[in-house]
Amino acid sequence: MEKKEIEAEIITIGDEILIGQVIDTNSAYIATLLNLNGISVKQISSVSDNREHIIKSLDEAQQRADIILMTGGLGPTKDDITKKTLCEYFNTSMRFDEQAYKDIEAIFAAYGKEVTPINRLQAEVPEICITIRNHNGTAPGMWFEYQGKIIVSMPGVPYEMKAMMKNQILPKLKEQYKLPSIVHKTILTQGIGESYLADLIAEWENDLTTDNIKLAYLPSPGMVRLRLSAKGNNAEKLNLLVDQKIEDLKKIISEFIYGYETFGEPSETLEQIIGRLLKEKKQTLSTAESCTGGYIAHLITKVPGASEYYVGSVISYSYGIKETELDVPKEIIETKGAVSQPVVEQMAKAIRGKYKTDYSIAASGIAGPGGSTPDKPVGTVWIAIATSETIISEKFLFGTNRERNIQKTANAALNMLRKELEK
Amino acid sequence: MEKKEIEAEIITIGDEILIGQVIDTNSAYIATLLNLNGISVKQISSVSDNREHIIKSLDEAQQRADIILMTGGLGPTKDDITKKTLCEYFNTSMRFDEQAYKDIEAIFAAYGKEVTPINRLQAEVPEICITIRNHNGTAPGMWFEYQGKIIVSMPGVPYEMKAMMKNQILPKLKEQYKLPSIVHKTILTQGIGESYLADLIAEWENDLTTDNIKLAYLPSPGMVRLRLSAKGNNAEKLNLLVDQKIEDLKKIISEFIYGYETFGEPSETLEQIIGRLLKEKKQTLSTAESCTGGYIAHLITKVPGASEYYVGSVISYSYGIKETELDVPKEIIETKGAVSQPVVEQMAKAIRGKYKTDYSIAASGIAGPGGSTPDKPVGTVWIAIATSETIISEKFLFGTNRERNIQKTANAALNMLRKELEK
Repeated sequence: MEKKEIEAEIITIGDEILIGQVIDTNSAYIATLLNLNGISVKQISSVSDNREHIIKSLDEAQQRADIILMTGGLGPTKDDITKKTLCEYFNTSMRFDEQAYKDIEAIFAAYGKEVTPINRLQAEVPEICITIRNHNGTAPGMWFEYQGKIIVSMPGVPYEMKAMMKNQILPKLKEQYKLPSIVHKTILTQGIGESYLADLIAEWENDLTTDNIKLAYLPSPGMVRLRLSAKGNNAEKLNLLVDQKIEDLKKIISEFIYGYETFGEPSETLEQIIGRLLKEKKQTLSTAESCTGGYIAHLITKVPGASEYYVGSVISYSYGIKETELDVPKEIIETKGAVSQPVVEQMAKAIRGKYKTDYSIAASGIAGPGGSTPDKPVGTVWIAIATSETIISEKFLFGTNRERNIQKTANAALNMLRKELEK
Repeated sequence: MEKKEIEAEIITIGDEILIGQVIDTNSAYIATLLNLNGISVKQISSVSDNREHIIKSLDEAQQRADIILMTGGLGPTKDDITKKTLCEYFNTSMRFDEQAYKDIEAIFAAYGKEVTPINRLQAEVPEICITIRNHNGTAPGMWFEYQGKIIVSMPGVPYEMKAMMKNQILPKLKEQYKLPSIVHKTILTQGIGESYLADLIAEWENDLTTDNIKLAYLPSPGMVRLRLSAKGNNAEKLNLLVDQKIEDLKKIISEFIYGYETFGEPSETLEQIIGRLLKEKKQTLSTAESCTGGYIAHLITKVPGASEYYVGSVISYSYGIKETELDVPKEIIETKGAVSQPVVEQMAKAIRGKYKTDYSIAASGIAGPGGSTPDKPVGTVWIAIATSETIISEKFLFGTNRERNIQKTANAALNMLRKELEK
């Protein structure tokens, strides 16, 4: 088979998603895998364990897509009706699959148990399907070829589905279709909002259309990820083209770029970048936090192996602790306020000296909702970085939401340190 | 309007979900909120930022449901086309919404910035819609009434959507439809796993069926929430019935229950309970953290007004800081290990004295993946609480996942303090 673009749809069956009890992570997994391999996903639908509804959604999906991947509704209980419905949909009858039964027996044997009658029924599959073995559970997968389309039914248990999808379904799809090359690269930015970014790069963005490259803005507090996608027949050429666009972009917004992400490969977070750089330099870090209340330390210590470079922190939430533990003169707090350049610089200097580290981060701000003054609204934050040579500090004005102010402060602080480490 | 069962559909718009880069958590939030208020969700669909596709999915959804809730595609950038498509779908033109513009100005003003031309366009909405104010972002929501159906478009940014959905859309839906009475009460437990809990309360759970009460287990690291749901016409009777079931449950698992949650009212988290109790007692708290690396402090300081009772913390990530800042004798670390009862008790005692607080929390453990010894596997954690009268400490054995170990430790520590405060 050859076709300009191969499109798939995903249908998840079951009430758990529709009542909001379960977040649909299966679809994201399948969609990632398909997109990485040049199959685009047209629609994802979650439908109920209901015969008419399943049939309707299959009909609709077939009008749009070449491939339909279904998950769920294959359990042994009465409310799971996917298999029966598929049998009816393809106007076929059930057959007993010996290999599927052997796989079910093996699963039960692993728990030292005999197959129950209800689970024996799971070895029955529609006559016309190719059975896909399930090595992690009792429900086999089913592969149908029907009116030029491929329809696959997989169990809904994530680790059963994932193994089946990756090791069996995807290779079979690659055999059937000549798939295009696809390149995704993501630029990670910090310190500029989505709309300012859009204004800055408007011209560059316009040029992307000429080369048929798609751009997506993916915002999170204090950060925006820019994803470039290109599709074609020559992977090498696509890579060069996208890399060139990234080089062009760097000329415009280099100061905001902290990293890149190649689709499919794990992305490096700011705290991971810092960890890597500190390990490379064999240097250490301490923090002194006020408004972030431990969140910067938490991000740093979420990274496995952080104890190699992270020594510790003083969280000086009260004025008193700033004075006694970080030697901030009471007089400065009284005249300049706790959220001020001299205070945050002293915090950074003190913790670096006290904890004997190469670098330190200090942050003091008004997370909100209380604590603002006429000249210092909620969202005002001072951040300082101390090194062996200097102390740099910067003032920020974030928003009014406490939790996001904490996140934005932490991201800005980590990015300031990254810039220092990369100098 | 009155109808036997009101049904809704959710449509999420945007390529992020279809390429698998973003997991669709918005739909789960909306589905939960609707189901808890007596509106069932028929289908959830994720479609691309594509005019024809959005229109097709609206057509399909309208055939099945009374209410269509859409999220996403309302950003200021070119790839967001939801608003334009809705305008076309409803055969209407754009109008400039003054209130929406004021809200956009306010958001920009909070950052000390002027509205950009591209963001000014976000104040335009289709003529026939009722504008839903966005208090957290620049894209207003839009409420359409069309051929007896309600169609709502909301931004895709989760915290913007959530606030809009809960505070504006849901109340408006309740006005329009006569919904059944639904009572949901949630029992919050800490310190017992899902399957152990299920075994303990099996008999009680069986009895629920007789009264047509549904039970859901909602697990998160170290905690399980048990949600009871009853549907009917008499809210008062339903309330009494559910309360009686909770009284029965307390006889079985009272030691694990730390709180309750009534749907619609904000639930009190462990850190909020602690904050409330400390404020009531006018007492103070400090923390000394090792393996949790600031996460306990972060949870405590996420609560607005935490500065009233929370003084600060020493994060003693290295052995050295435990010795110099928390007076843990080097010899004890060498003989007993940093993850041991004497170390964690000394940490609690030292921080309480040094930071002059009424209570303190200390935690030391092996979050993993590294750092284990034959007698102390990954997941081994010691937690201590110091009060004016005593120091209590407890050993835990959590799992192998670093992030979950950090979360479980923090929750266990907060629960230990809660028990002390409630004595």
